[in-house]
Amino acid sequence: MTSEQGFFTEANSAEVVTSRNANAKDARLKAVMEVITRKLHEAVKEIEPTEEEWFKAIMFLTDTGHMCNEWRQEFILLSDVLGVSMLVDAINNRKPSGASESTVLGPFHVADAPELPMGANICLDQKGEPMRVHGRILDTEGKPISGAKIDVWQANDEGFYDVQQKGIQPDFNLRGVFRTGADGSYHFRGVKPKFYPIPDDGPVGKLLAALGRHPYRPAHLHYIVEAEGYDRLVTHIFDPDDPYIRSDAVFGVKESLMAKFQPMADPASGFDGPFLDLAFDFVLSRKGQ
Amino acid sequence: MTSEQGFFTEANSAEVVTSRNANAKDARLKAVMEVITRKLHEAVKEIEPTEEEWFKAIMFLTDTGHMCNEWRQEFILLSDVLGVSMLVDAINNRKPSGASESTVLGPFHVADAPELPMGANICLDQKGEPMRVHGRILDTEGKPISGAKIDVWQANDEGFYDVQQKGIQPDFNLRGVFRTGADGSYHFRGVKPKFYPIPDDGPVGKLLAALGRHPYRPAHLHYIVEAEGYDRLVTHIFDPDDPYIRSDAVFGVKESLMAKFQPMADPASGFDGPFLDLAFDFVLSRKGQ
Repeated sequence: MTSEQGFFTEANSAEVVTSRNANAKDARLKAVMEVITRKLHEAVKEIEPTEEEWFKAIMFLTDTGHMCNEWRQEFILLSDVLGVSMLVDAINNRKPSGASESTVLGPFHVADAPELPMGANICLDQKGEPMRVHGRILDTEGKPISGAKIDVWQANDEGFYDVQQKGIQPDFNLRGVFRTGADGSYHFRGVKPKFYPIPDDGPVGKLLAALGRHPYRPAHLHYIVEAEGYDRLVTHIFDPDDPYIRSDAVFGVKESLMAKFQPMADPASGFDGPFLDLAFDFVLSRKGQ
Repeated sequence: MTSEQGFFTEANSAEVVTSRNANAKDARLKAVMEVITRKLHEAVKEIEPTEEEWFKAIMFLTDTGHMCNEWRQEFILLSDVLGVSMLVDAINNRKPSGASESTVLGPFHVADAPELPMGANICLDQKGEPMRVHGRILDTEGKPISGAKIDVWQANDEGFYDVQQKGIQPDFNLRGVFRTGADGSYHFRGVKPKFYPIPDDGPVGKLLAALGRHPYRPAHLHYIVEAEGYDRLVTHIFDPDDPYIRSDAVFGVKESLMAKFQPMADPASGFDGPFLDLAFDFVLSRKGQ
């Protein structure tokens, strides 16, 4: 008998494994497992792990699984810090030239945030440095989109979302839904968000530490922008002056998503004293564009 | 700013992620994570998973982690059915020409099995088809190795190990440790083992089913053979006539590890009636050979 007849050898390992899936009914699963098996075997052959190292990897995955529960998803965190989440986002949100880029949704979106009148202050506890946020929702030809829904949420001046500080922050603090009028413009008030760490008390945090990496995300505002006939845009705006702007733990930053948090003092603005001004236009791509 | 300055793009994704590990103190971990990240990103780029598929993968890993406990290791099972365990075994046990090949240890080895006199019957409950097992422990020049320790264990005629049937099988049923004399030979009695399924009631079993694969391992005897000055050999002997010999769920079969379970009737053998004769010589490589 020769190895061509199907026995596993170091040389033909991946082919032998995937040839077993000949009868898989789900063609997509079969194709996916072919790639996973091939890349996994390539990795093992390049790494040449000792049996002890292999077992450490098994235990890392086991610990990561045991860390997962209803409110903590350690495998998503692992996907995030290895850049896999952003890669999947990039693959699924390739935009035509000129459209705003996407980034990850993150775990802090809340579906039932209140719809507010344009100009409202989403900061309900008066904590932090006041900020004016404004801009337009446009199509790729630069025309304003009327009736666009803007769902915005952000961390507070200490780097916490309301859902992380129930009883400390008011419910729905620093969240709001707005709708554009005929001119496609939006504006509201918030506070300067602060950088914050991803949860780092589990296996993923230990891995980051062992790799000499910090767990911080630079300060940002989250947006979901939707309008009929256009692709839904899930994205952030980032503070280019944040100390972690070049080392986001989850790789969410894109050059096109930065906007200066500009200090201003303007009595006509309606603010009592100095504030930060943040201007950003979002460009939506037409469905099927 | 350009992407060369460090922002994540679909094109440079793996490089950006691994460049973050510049300060890792453990050079091996850094090298391993470089390969894992690169191969993972290659796989994602080739698969182009939808966000739903990505989440299915996250949930598969989560469920696999939740299945692990003190006595069940679902990630090892996953490693086994993807051929990774056998690949790691192959990489760590490359043998010089002529030495017996290794295969996986498996989860049913027991450290404190009793040492028995040569010729003993390891079947303690008289169940199954009687079998005579014999052969020699040799070095790669064909010289017998004296004082070699042979640790053998096997499933019974229904495909269960003693540790899986506490109270049904006697303790240490079908296990024994033997030591060779000056001629390097060994012989003992057992029963014909039966094929058996790996645990298939978890996520890995579901994956096998979805891939059109069965969970069976062909009938085999386990061996650990050790002698001073020689590499430890962890291996199996397989029944070439087993229905699953070409489709071991964990890819443990090697051509060189098969030995005919030969029906015999020989009054001089000491058996009351017909029995199976199984002859197999093990060849150990010298340490550092």
